[in-house]
Amino acid sequence: MHPLSPLLATARGDTPATLVLRNARLVNVFTGQVQPPADLALHQDRVAGLGSNYQSDQVIDLAGAYLCPGYIDAHVHIESSLCTPAQFAAAVLPRGVTTVIADPHELANVVGLDAVTWMANASRDLPLNVVLMGPSCVPATPMATAGATLDANHLQALYANNTIHGLAEVMNYPGVINGEADVLAKLDALKGQPIDGHSPGANGKDLDAYAAAGVGSDHECVTPEEARDRLERGLYLLIREATNARNLDALLPVVTPQNARRVCFCTDDRTPGDLLNIGSIDHMVRRAITHHNIDPLDALRMATLNPAEWFGLRQVGAIAPGRTADLLVFDDLQNPTPKMVFAKGQLVAEDGKLLDHAIPDPDATLGIPHGQCTVDTANPNLTIPATGESIRVIGHLPDQLLTEPLTLPATVHDGQAVADPARDLLKMAVFERHHNTGNVGLGFIQGIGLKHGAIAGTVAHDHHNLVAIGADDTSIRTAAAAIAEDGGGLAVADGETILARLPLPIGGLMSDQPVQAVADAYAQAVTQARALGSPLADPFMAMSFMALEVIPSLKLTDLGLVDVERFELVDLFV
Amino acid sequence: MHPLSPLLATARGDTPATLVLRNARLVNVFTGQVQPPADLALHQDRVAGLGSNYQSDQVIDLAGAYLCPGYIDAHVHIESSLCTPAQFAAAVLPRGVTTVIADPHELANVVGLDAVTWMANASRDLPLNVVLMGPSCVPATPMATAGATLDANHLQALYANNTIHGLAEVMNYPGVINGEADVLAKLDALKGQPIDGHSPGANGKDLDAYAAAGVGSDHECVTPEEARDRLERGLYLLIREATNARNLDALLPVVTPQNARRVCFCTDDRTPGDLLNIGSIDHMVRRAITHHNIDPLDALRMATLNPAEWFGLRQVGAIAPGRTADLLVFDDLQNPTPKMVFAKGQLVAEDGKLLDHAIPDPDATLGIPHGQCTVDTANPNLTIPATGESIRVIGHLPDQLLTEPLTLPATVHDGQAVADPARDLLKMAVFERHHNTGNVGLGFIQGIGLKHGAIAGTVAHDHHNLVAIGADDTSIRTAAAAIAEDGGGLAVADGETILARLPLPIGGLMSDQPVQAVADAYAQAVTQARALGSPLADPFMAMSFMALEVIPSLKLTDLGLVDVERFELVDLFV
Repeated sequence: MHPLSPLLATARGDTPATLVLRNARLVNVFTGQVQPPADLALHQDRVAGLGSNYQSDQVIDLAGAYLCPGYIDAHVHIESSLCTPAQFAAAVLPRGVTTVIADPHELANVVGLDAVTWMANASRDLPLNVVLMGPSCVPATPMATAGATLDANHLQALYANNTIHGLAEVMNYPGVINGEADVLAKLDALKGQPIDGHSPGANGKDLDAYAAAGVGSDHECVTPEEARDRLERGLYLLIREATNARNLDALLPVVTPQNARRVCFCTDDRTPGDLLNIGSIDHMVRRAITHHNIDPLDALRMATLNPAEWFGLRQVGAIAPGRTADLLVFDDLQNPTPKMVFAKGQLVAEDGKLLDHAIPDPDATLGIPHGQCTVDTANPNLTIPATGESIRVIGHLPDQLLTEPLTLPATVHDGQAVADPARDLLKMAVFERHHNTGNVGLGFIQGIGLKHGAIAGTVAHDHHNLVAIGADDTSIRTAAAAIAEDGGGLAVADGETILARLPLPIGGLMSDQPVQAVADAYAQAVTQARALGSPLADPFMAMSFMALEVIPSLKLTDLGLVDVERFELVDLFV
Repeated sequence: MHPLSPLLATARGDTPATLVLRNARLVNVFTGQVQPPADLALHQDRVAGLGSNYQSDQVIDLAGAYLCPGYIDAHVHIESSLCTPAQFAAAVLPRGVTTVIADPHELANVVGLDAVTWMANASRDLPLNVVLMGPSCVPATPMATAGATLDANHLQALYANNTIHGLAEVMNYPGVINGEADVLAKLDALKGQPIDGHSPGANGKDLDAYAAAGVGSDHECVTPEEARDRLERGLYLLIREATNARNLDALLPVVTPQNARRVCFCTDDRTPGDLLNIGSIDHMVRRAITHHNIDPLDALRMATLNPAEWFGLRQVGAIAPGRTADLLVFDDLQNPTPKMVFAKGQLVAEDGKLLDHAIPDPDATLGIPHGQCTVDTANPNLTIPATGESIRVIGHLPDQLLTEPLTLPATVHDGQAVADPARDLLKMAVFERHHNTGNVGLGFIQGIGLKHGAIAGTVAHDHHNLVAIGADDTSIRTAAAAIAEDGGGLAVADGETILARLPLPIGGLMSDQPVQAVADAYAQAVTQARALGSPLADPFMAMSFMALEVIPSLKLTDLGLVDVERFELVDLFV
C-alpha cells in the first residue's frame, strides 16, 4: 500500500479520521478569511480535510473557536535558549510555535559538522518541526580561535544528506558584495535553496550586489528605511524581536496590506527566561495586532504562510489537506493566545502549559557534542606589564552590540596595568578553550559596572571561548575555574567564592536540564552579577558580545584587541 | 573569476552596465507599488540594480514609462500554437510573455521521451524562458492507441537530468483520489517540486483527497464555486483563457486583494491566430483591469510574481538585483500594452512587433521528432455493415468539449450505415497512425454540420491519431491521404479535391513554418471547412476533442466508441 493511501481514504471519508476537531472557525491563510464553523479531520500527523460527516473515535469540540496554522519562527538560534532542542521545544510549543528555521551557528563554531548533525538528531523525533540551515560563517574571522571550520564542501555534504535546507544568515556581507570566492562558494553550495541574509546597515548599490548574489532575506533591519530598501529589492523582511535586539515596534509601521506577504517574524536569540515569560512568535503576532493595528489575518500570515513560502516549505504554514497538522486554537482573533496547540497531529499544550509526555525523553544514545573546555585556570598569567601610560578600552554601550573605542590612562600598580573598579575599569580576559593553545587575550572594559568580583562564561559569540570580566584577577580565576570544571557554562565569583554557576556541558553553550531550571539558574546568575554592582539588566548577555570581532568598534578575542573597522589586531597600549 | 563577479561589479557601480534604462517607473511586485523614476542597470541577461549614476555605452531613456516584469504563462501547451517553440516565442514575446510553464503533453503522446527532450533542446537558446513540466498522462487511457508511454521512471529520469521542473496537470484525478499506485508513483517522482492539477468538477471530499496527495494548483475551474473550493484548499488558481475554454470573465469575480496572491493566469491552448490577433497573458491582464476592476498591481502580480512563487522560480517574476532581465515597458498602468519587451536583457519587440534577429535561427542539427503518420489511406475499409437499426451518435455541443450521447436511427444504403448530411449525421473515422496497427475506429457524429466533403487532422487529443469527419467516404479518404503524405497535418477535401492543407510534420502536431504563415494556413483551412457547410467557428478545434476519451460522454478512438462515464468501449449499434 502506498504511504499516502490511508490519508486519502480519510480525506475521501472512506475510513475514520484519527482525530476530528468539531466546530472550528478556520483561519484560512490562503484566502485571508475566517471560514464558517466546520470540522477538521486528521489522519495521524496530517490534515485530511475540512467539512462535515467525518467518523472518528477521537473528537474534540472546539465550540466555534478559531483554528490557525502553527507559527513559524523564521530565524532562531536554539543555542540562545541555553537548552537542548527538546527543552527549547518545551518552551515554544505552548506558545504555538510548531516550526523553527534554526541556524546552529553557535554550536557549529564549537564542534563544527558534529554540531549540525547532533542538532538534526536531537530534533528529529520532536513534535517541533526543526528546519536546519547551514551555518555560513564558521569561523567568523581569522582574528579569533574558533572551535571548528565549515567550508563550502561541508555545507554541500550537509545538504546532500538532507541535514540542512538552505544557507543561514550570510553575515560576511562585505565578502558577498565584493565577490570573495570562498563566500560565493558557500552560496553556490546551496544554490536554488533559500539563502538567508544578514546585512546590517548595507544600502544602495552595496545592497544591490548583496541581493544580486542570491541572498533572499534579511533579519538585521533596525530602521524603516532599511526594511523598505530590502523589500523593494525582493528580500523577505524577517522582523526580529530578540532578547538583545528588539526591532518589532520600529519595523511594523513599514508593513502594508500590499507588502505584508513578504514579511515574516523571527526571534533570533531569546534567553530561556524571555521564552518562558514573554513568549516567542505568539508575542509578536499579538503586539502587531494590538499595538500596530495590523489586520489579524495579515499578522497571522506573517507568522505562517509567508515564512512557509520563503523557505519553500509546502507542508507547513497553512491548514489544508495533506499539510502537517500543526494547529493552534484561540478564542480572540484580536488578541490570539493559544489555548490548545497541536503539533504533528498531537495535542501538546493547553492554556500555555506543555502536556506531560508531549516531548519524548531524550535518546540517551545520542552522542552529545561536548566540545572542549580546557583552560588552564589554575595558573593563567593574567598580569599586564605596563608598557605605556594610555590604554585602549572597550566602551560598552547600554543595549548595544556596538562598542565605543576609548583611550584612557591606565591604572598602574607595581608596574602592572590593573582593574580599577572605582573608574569602572574592569579587566577582561578571553581564554582559548577549544584547542589547548593556552591563548589568553587581555584587555579592559568600561560600562559593565562590577564593583568587585567577576563574571565569566563560555557563551561568547561567535568563537565561544571562555570570556571573563572582573574587578580582580582572583575573582576572574575563580569564575573561570568553576566553568572549566563544569565543562562550560556561566559563573559569578567574588574572590575565591563562587556565587552562582550554570553548567552548560553541551558545547559550553547548552544545558542538559529542563528549560525552567535553566531559566531559574540564569536569573540567579544575573541577580548575583547585579549584586556585585553591575547596573545592566543582563551582564552575561552584554559580555557575550564583547568578544565578537565582527561588530564594531573595539573587541577582545583570545588573540588580543581587535579594531573591527580596520579589521586588524591592535595593541592594548596606545 | 566567479561567474557572478561581473554582475556584482556592475551592481556595486564599479564597472559599466551593459545596458541602462533611464527614467523607469518600476512596477515593484514585491511592495505592490510603483516607484518614482529611476535608472535600471543590467549586466547582460541580469538585473544589477535600480538607482542612479550608472555608466554604460548603451542607454535607453524610458521617459517615465512603466517598467514591469515580463509575464509568465502559468500553463500552456506550445503544441496548440501548431508551431515550434521558436515560432511560439515569436508570437508571445511581443505580447510581453517572457516565461512559459509548458507541458509537452501533446508531442509526448506521439513520441514520448524524445518529445520532452526535443522541446527542451528547441527552447534552450530562445529569449523566451521555457520551463518544462513532465507530462503526467501519456497515454491518457488504455482505450486508445497513443504513440508512446511515459511512466514514473521516465519522469524521474527527466527530472534528474534537469529537463523538467515539476509534474504537469495530473488529469487522472480519479486515479489520484483513489490512490492508484501508478499515478501516485508519478507524483512521488516529482515530490517536493510543483505538481499541477486538473480536476474539472471535483469538489468536497474528493477535492480534499486530490489536494492531500500533493497537487498544488488547478486550471480547470469554470465556476466561481470551483475556484473558491480550490483556493480554500491551498491550490493555486490558474485562471485559464484558452481558445476553446474561456474562464476569465467567470472567475475574476472570485479574486480579492486578500486572495490575489494565490491566483495566476494561463492560456493552456491557443491557436496561432488567437496568439497573433488577441494575444496571450497581456490580454488577460488588460481585461482584468479594464473589465473587472482588478487593481493593476494585483493583476500584474497575477501575471508575474504569483506564478514565479508557485513554481519556485526565483529568477523571474520580478525586477530585482540578480533576477533575469525580462522586462516590459508600457505607458498606461490602467491598460498595459507593452511597447518594448526585453527578454534575458535583450530588446526583442517594440510596439507589438518582434525585432529582426530577436529569435535565433533554429539549429538545423536538432533532431526533429517526426513521429509516425503511417496510415493506409489508399484503401482503408471505411464501410460499416448495418448490423442494427439504431446507432450511438456523438452529439457535438457548441463551444464544449463534453458531448451528448445520442441514439438515432441509422441511415442505411446497400446494407451499410452511411453518413447522411441532410440529417447532419457525418461519418467519423480515427486512423491509428503511430504503430502500423491498421486500426480504424468508425462512428457517427452530429453537430459539425458539413454538407459535403470532409475535414481531417492529426491533432486529436490526446493520442493524436488521424481523425476525419466527412459527408462521404471519398472525401474522408482524400483528406486523410493528403495528411499522410504531409507526415501529419490538417486537410479539407471535397470528393477527390483537396481544398486546403496545413502540413504539421513535427509529430503531426507542429509546423516548421513561421507562425504568421501557420495562422494564415489554419485560417484558410477553417474557411474551407465552413464553406463546406459547418456553422462552427473552428471545426478543426471541435474535431480535435471528439476523439478524447477522458471527457464525457461519448467519444471515438481508433479502438472504437468510448462511453467515458462507464470508462469502456461500446458498440456502435444499440
